[in-house]
Amino acid sequence: MGLQNTRTSNYADWYLNVVKAADMAENSPARGCMVIKPWGYGIWENIKSSLDEMIKETGHENCYFPLFIPLSLFQKEADHVDGFAKEMAVVTHSRLENKDGKLTPASPLEEPLVVRPTSETIIAESFAKWVGSYRDLPIMINQWANVVRWEMRTRMFLRTAEFLWQEGHTAHSTEEEAVDETLTMIECYRKLAEDYMAMPVIVGRKTELDKFPGAVDTYGIIAMMPDGRALQAGTSHYLGQNFAKSANISFQNKNNKPEFAYTTSWGVSTRLIGGLIMTHGDDEGLKVPPRIAPYQVVIVPIYRNDDTTSRDEVNEYAENLEKELKKSMPFGEKIRVKFDKRDRTPVDKRWEWLRKGAPIVVEVGPKDIEKNSVAVVYRNRMEDKKQFIDFNEFTATTKAKLEEIQTEMFENAKKLRDESIIEIDNWDDLVAHFKPKNKFLEAEGKSPAFVKIKWCGCNEQELEDKLKEFQAAIHCITNEEAKGKCVVSGEDNARYEVLVARSY
Amino acid sequence: MGLQNTRTSNYADWYLNVVKAADMAENSPARGCMVIKPWGYGIWENIKSSLDEMIKETGHENCYFPLFIPLSLFQKEADHVDGFAKEMAVVTHSRLENKDGKLTPASPLEEPLVVRPTSETIIAESFAKWVGSYRDLPIMINQWANVVRWEMRTRMFLRTAEFLWQEGHTAHSTEEEAVDETLTMIECYRKLAEDYMAMPVIVGRKTELDKFPGAVDTYGIIAMMPDGRALQAGTSHYLGQNFAKSANISFQNKNNKPEFAYTTSWGVSTRLIGGLIMTHGDDEGLKVPPRIAPYQVVIVPIYRNDDTTSRDEVNEYAENLEKELKKSMPFGEKIRVKFDKRDRTPVDKRWEWLRKGAPIVVEVGPKDIEKNSVAVVYRNRMEDKKQFIDFNEFTATTKAKLEEIQTEMFENAKKLRDESIIEIDNWDDLVAHFKPKNKFLEAEGKSPAFVKIKWCGCNEQELEDKLKEFQAAIHCITNEEAKGKCVVSGEDNARYEVLVARSY
Repeated sequence: MGLQNTRTSNYADWYLNVVKAADMAENSPARGCMVIKPWGYGIWENIKSSLDEMIKETGHENCYFPLFIPLSLFQKEADHVDGFAKEMAVVTHSRLENKDGKLTPASPLEEPLVVRPTSETIIAESFAKWVGSYRDLPIMINQWANVVRWEMRTRMFLRTAEFLWQEGHTAHSTEEEAVDETLTMIECYRKLAEDYMAMPVIVGRKTELDKFPGAVDTYGIIAMMPDGRALQAGTSHYLGQNFAKSANISFQNKNNKPEFAYTTSWGVSTRLIGGLIMTHGDDEGLKVPPRIAPYQVVIVPIYRNDDTTSRDEVNEYAENLEKELKKSMPFGEKIRVKFDKRDRTPVDKRWEWLRKGAPIVVEVGPKDIEKNSVAVVYRNRMEDKKQFIDFNEFTATTKAKLEEIQTEMFENAKKLRDESIIEIDNWDDLVAHFKPKNKFLEAEGKSPAFVKIKWCGCNEQELEDKLKEFQAAIHCITNEEAKGKCVVSGEDNARYEVLVARSY
Repeated sequence: MGLQNTRTSNYADWYLNVVKAADMAENSPARGCMVIKPWGYGIWENIKSSLDEMIKETGHENCYFPLFIPLSLFQKEADHVDGFAKEMAVVTHSRLENKDGKLTPASPLEEPLVVRPTSETIIAESFAKWVGSYRDLPIMINQWANVVRWEMRTRMFLRTAEFLWQEGHTAHSTEEEAVDETLTMIECYRKLAEDYMAMPVIVGRKTELDKFPGAVDTYGIIAMMPDGRALQAGTSHYLGQNFAKSANISFQNKNNKPEFAYTTSWGVSTRLIGGLIMTHGDDEGLKVPPRIAPYQVVIVPIYRNDDTTSRDEVNEYAENLEKELKKSMPFGEKIRVKFDKRDRTPVDKRWEWLRKGAPIVVEVGPKDIEKNSVAVVYRNRMEDKKQFIDFNEFTATTKAKLEEIQTEMFENAKKLRDESIIEIDNWDDLVAHFKPKNKFLEAEGKSPAFVKIKWCGCNEQELEDKLKEFQAAIHCITNEEAKGKCVVSGEDNARYEVLVARSY
């Protein structure tokens, strides 16, 4: 079967081919927005519920802030920012009227409303209102919502005008507690990416220039895509007292003195699904790791027009299989099984589910009933032949098999990533590495890889400017206690090991 | 303690007092929108997950359509509707700029975008694209999302400009299947209201004038509020081929002939929480039924400044209680326990949780440790004294207790509702019943109740106009096979029994 564009022939089109082949999303009539179809949304639901459990276990509560933010709330921010300009959707009217047969916006608002690009400003305002004494702290909340940023160049899941995300915001009475919180959440993101999405990530602190404006420290998880580029998949910010000062989030401390709160914020979005597609897509479509697959096992019935085995018998056999499988509890949850009875050929159905990346596709027909067996294809080992497995053996081993697939997908992705990390210890090699025509790597048939360099922290702006010429950047600090020669200064004064790579 | 306004002294203010006392939501800087705080949002999350499970079990999949709908998609609808005018938020600009220190909308859009009041039009457009053959049917999808309707008079949860809801949309190849679907979903709503929210409802079909415009049939669930008014809490529509015709959702049927699909739609919103507050609020705050309570048991520690029992010992005892309770599985799910360690007095904490309506509040202090007991208050029986229960007995019986509270809350609400339903068999008594000063009921100290009348279906418009004078309306048909005298015509030709009541 195979996609129109393979990963190596045309990477950008291959990505969109996978989205389409797996039937995850499509463009919508509203520019830059997408329709997330059941398979794509089902993956998001599983990502969401996995992370939500961690968010609650670490002491946070969910809440919901309004979609609209009055313009005046941004005015304060604009007062502090030179040349403030933001790409945001602005609501100016509250009514549609039919004027001479043409629909027209009517009833202009006194004050325009901005569709939230984040809920940061409005949450900060609430925090200021809710916090009075140290007894009110910590406040640890999270919101799952849609946000809008007017992007000019969009790309399904990776960058869309509207996207779905969570944003966590916390306020604490001590710096120590807030720093702990920042680190706790980046660790939750690492677990989400690695243990659930089978997507290996590098966790690190951002450099001065790269951190979130106004943050004291920003931590990120960075995944390597198959074209060697780095995808930032989630960030967690320790904001010190900076945001509390501008939003006036202050409290009476235990000594009855006023003090500004120590705040954090952290978020991940549907962009994670873009990372998933690139990490686990191949030239047939997508592979979804079992833990976040909307269906972990799909049963495809085969009906034959013969006298010996009726359609009803096949259905009964399949339903029995479904029932037995549903007793299985991989990852501590009931297995998600789909019995696909739609009126299409078995071959079409099998391929549809393999393109979507359901981990296990099982066919059952008259011959299988005769032998009390099932015919199984494992999506992550599609090159293997269809396996005929005894019914009871299959139902007894599926739990373990799904867990094995989950591990194998992560280990494979990790091996690939680890093999693509190289260390470079001098400036010339670094430049050579990222030059558009990379001779070393092309000869080896490799795409540009992740590079680790040692650095003393000098000349950050010049370094970033230089790397930018090759579309590369420093992504994070991977070791805060490195020693040796600084690749930039050439002196024996390195303090950091940092990750350099091309970026999305 | 008690609220400022009791339910009988000032019903409207009492409602807002409960919202505040239970710390569920507050008004936001954006007009008509609310901030849903953790306790309110936690209730919504549990309502949502309970219903979502039913939605999935009945064969539906979730997906996500964009927030924005281009104006042109509404133009077609406007062409069909005389005097089309809709209260909707309209986005006209995509940028904010700082002009002479004042933030101003900039970059006008070529085509304005409407913030979805429902996703109906955009989903219909997708269906038209997705459906080609009978093999593509049924399509059964659902969306959880925020929607915006520019309401002038808002009331937290009951009517807000932005609200959260789900909308289900399905398309089928036969009328029979679509009718079944409509009924399946109204039954899911009944189960949600009664079995999860402990809110008794009457299920019925809407009359011709009351049904959703364009629907063949609309079914609703109607709850009685303590002021005797009817709250419509959810609806399910069988749309026949009407919507398919206007949106061009057609398919090749099995005989290879083109045919329009048979569609349905159904929805419930955060308005349900308004119903919950009125059903289970009292003059102290809210009572939340255990199945949807964010926390089912709250543990409040009591620390004393004595030498014998340290703070650590109390914490250890409480944590042990928490651990034991978490093994309990009421309703097939792990019990939701909160150990409230905040730095406030035990009395303040106890009252806070009782106002919020946590079903069980348990205090543990040095005296309890001594006796290996716990001090328990049940929110639904707050008039009872605090009960001292043996630690092991308490942990062993909490599962059953929560289920008992759930049943009791439903039975109490149902008894109250059932006692307030009266039958009226002639026009004069009906008018007398709903006249602003209702002598019968006032004398008995009762609020206006639900009335059942028999009706042949005649003069619907005049009947509704007359009832409207008393703010009343027909809410649904409660019996399709009634016999006897029609209250309107006076003839012995009744066909329906209908529910008449004042409305929200």
